[in-house]
Amino acid sequence: MSHRVCFYETDAMGIVHHANYIHFFENARVQWLDDHDRPYRWYVEQGIHFATTHIAVHYQSPTAFDDELEITTWLDWARGASLGMAYRIAREGETKVLGTSEHAAVDLEGRIRRIPKQRRDSLREIAARRP
Amino acid sequence: MSHRVCFYETDAMGIVHHANYIHFFENARVQWLDDHDRPYRWYVEQGIHFATTHIAVHYQSPTAFDDELEITTWLDWARGASLGMAYRIAREGETKVLGTSEHAAVDLEGRIRRIPKQRRDSLREIAARRP
Amino acid sequence: MSHRVCFYETDAMGIVHHANYIHFFENARVQWLDDHDRPYRWYVEQGIHFATTHIAVHYQSPTAFDDELEITTWLDWARGASLGMAYRIAREGETKVLGTSEHAAVDLEGRIRRIPKQRRDSLREIAARRP
Amino acid sequence: MSHRVCFYETDAMGIVHHANYIHFFENARVQWLDDHDRPYRWYVEQGIHFATTHIAVHYQSPTAFDDELEITTWLDWARGASLGMAYRIAREGETKVLGTSEHAAVDLEGRIRRIPKQRRDSLREIAARRP
Repeated sequence: MSHRVCFYETDAMGIVHHANYIHFFENARVQWLDDHDRPYRWYVEQGIHFATTHIAVHYQSPTAFDDELEITTWLDWARGASLGMAYRIAREGETKVLGTSEHAAVDLEGRIRRIPKQRRDSLREIAARRP
Repeated sequence: MSHRVCFYETDAMGIVHHANYIHFFENARVQWLDDHDRPYRWYVEQGIHFATTHIAVHYQSPTAFDDELEITTWLDWARGASLGMAYRIAREGETKVLGTSEHAAVDLEGRIRRIPKQRRDSLREIAARRP
Repeated sequence: MSHRVCFYETDAMGIVHHANYIHFFENARVQWLDDHDRPYRWYVEQGIHFATTHIAVHYQSPTAFDDELEITTWLDWARGASLGMAYRIAREGETKVLGTSEHAAVDLEGRIRRIPKQRRDSLREIAARRP
Repeated sequence: MSHRVCFYETDAMGIVHHANYIHFFENARVQWLDDHDRPYRWYVEQGIHFATTHIAVHYQSPTAFDDELEITTWLDWARGASLGMAYRIAREGETKVLGTSEHAAVDLEGRIRRIPKQRRDSLREIAARRP
């Protein structure tokens, strides 16, 4: 997916504030689920949320207002009740930010839930196929 | 209440992004309820939220990272299921931002609910006493 | 322009937090300048920012995660060093939020500057043509 | 430092959105510099910013609106032009979130700069003393 940097995403250094890349990761994840699995709202309708349990971000170089960013994400691994995603944010082909995230499937009270079997099998298959 | 401007609240103009004052208003409102009425979480426990129905903000001069802001809020009026607040944000005595907000009491499904009678009477009394 | 509501734009009421509509207005404004005037970065390159001096928002009904919003904006008026915009945010044709904003042209030190004459004339003409 | 969770920091899961902990880390860092080194604005006045180059966050359990959080931060290491911080966010003594961050000293154009010698020596000494 692509994202054009908003003015409100910048900070007084004149660049995108580093916390906002976590937002870009989230949007890319939502889009990835649309394209490769089920929309996030489908999971919510089943009473499942994916709570974020870990985030790591490497900032290689800054981005600025109005930059057109390409955000790539892929499924790194999937287990019974959790999954890992990876991200690359680039501008004009140059990598700006790399990241990973881990998520646990939880019910609306926050208790760990297994990912529904059909989804789990499909996610594992997708993870196995990644280069 | 006072607020020390966070770096992430600034934008590429080097000043506080104008949307963040809405956050400061909200925090002042929560503090006001603590001090003059019941904590916001008390209302949530009664199944009531105060949905924001109107906001107006006049920006007189900008504020910057690390500025110590004094945020004053007061109840402007209270009716059966709604109330109005007003705000003044100053730095070293100089007014920077003025604003007003209106809120409707709603239940967790978003339907209008009357403010509980005892609270309503108390809020009206407070509004009547304002200078 | 359209905007698909991000998960991070929601709050614990399960709806879009009211401060985020100010962000949507800003994005619509940037897009409007692209389409009808000069890109915002063009103004920044001329040493001009449009500081927000006033915002008003009427919240008619809430929006939620994954909602597809249509954001319409138009130039309400233009003067020598300021302009006013208006906004309508709808979902499936139903108005959700209305708003207005006013902006002053300022230089990078925050002093009022006149909008460059050619731009000013063009903006006035656009404002005069609005229905 | 302590932080009372703001309503706008929550999301539709009813908990603090995971990106906001990055904001809490930043505030704790600013406070740490005040208490142990020089205020961040002192560095900015010297023409130095600390650009974030790496962030890692482990989310152990969620926090909610109005929770009183205790945020602890310490200097993990300091080198000529970079430093590492660590964070622990707890509520009523229970760890909720752990994290680390790395920062490079840069000038206002984003080029790597050495931390001024006196500061560098002092930071190294502080890092050496940590338990």
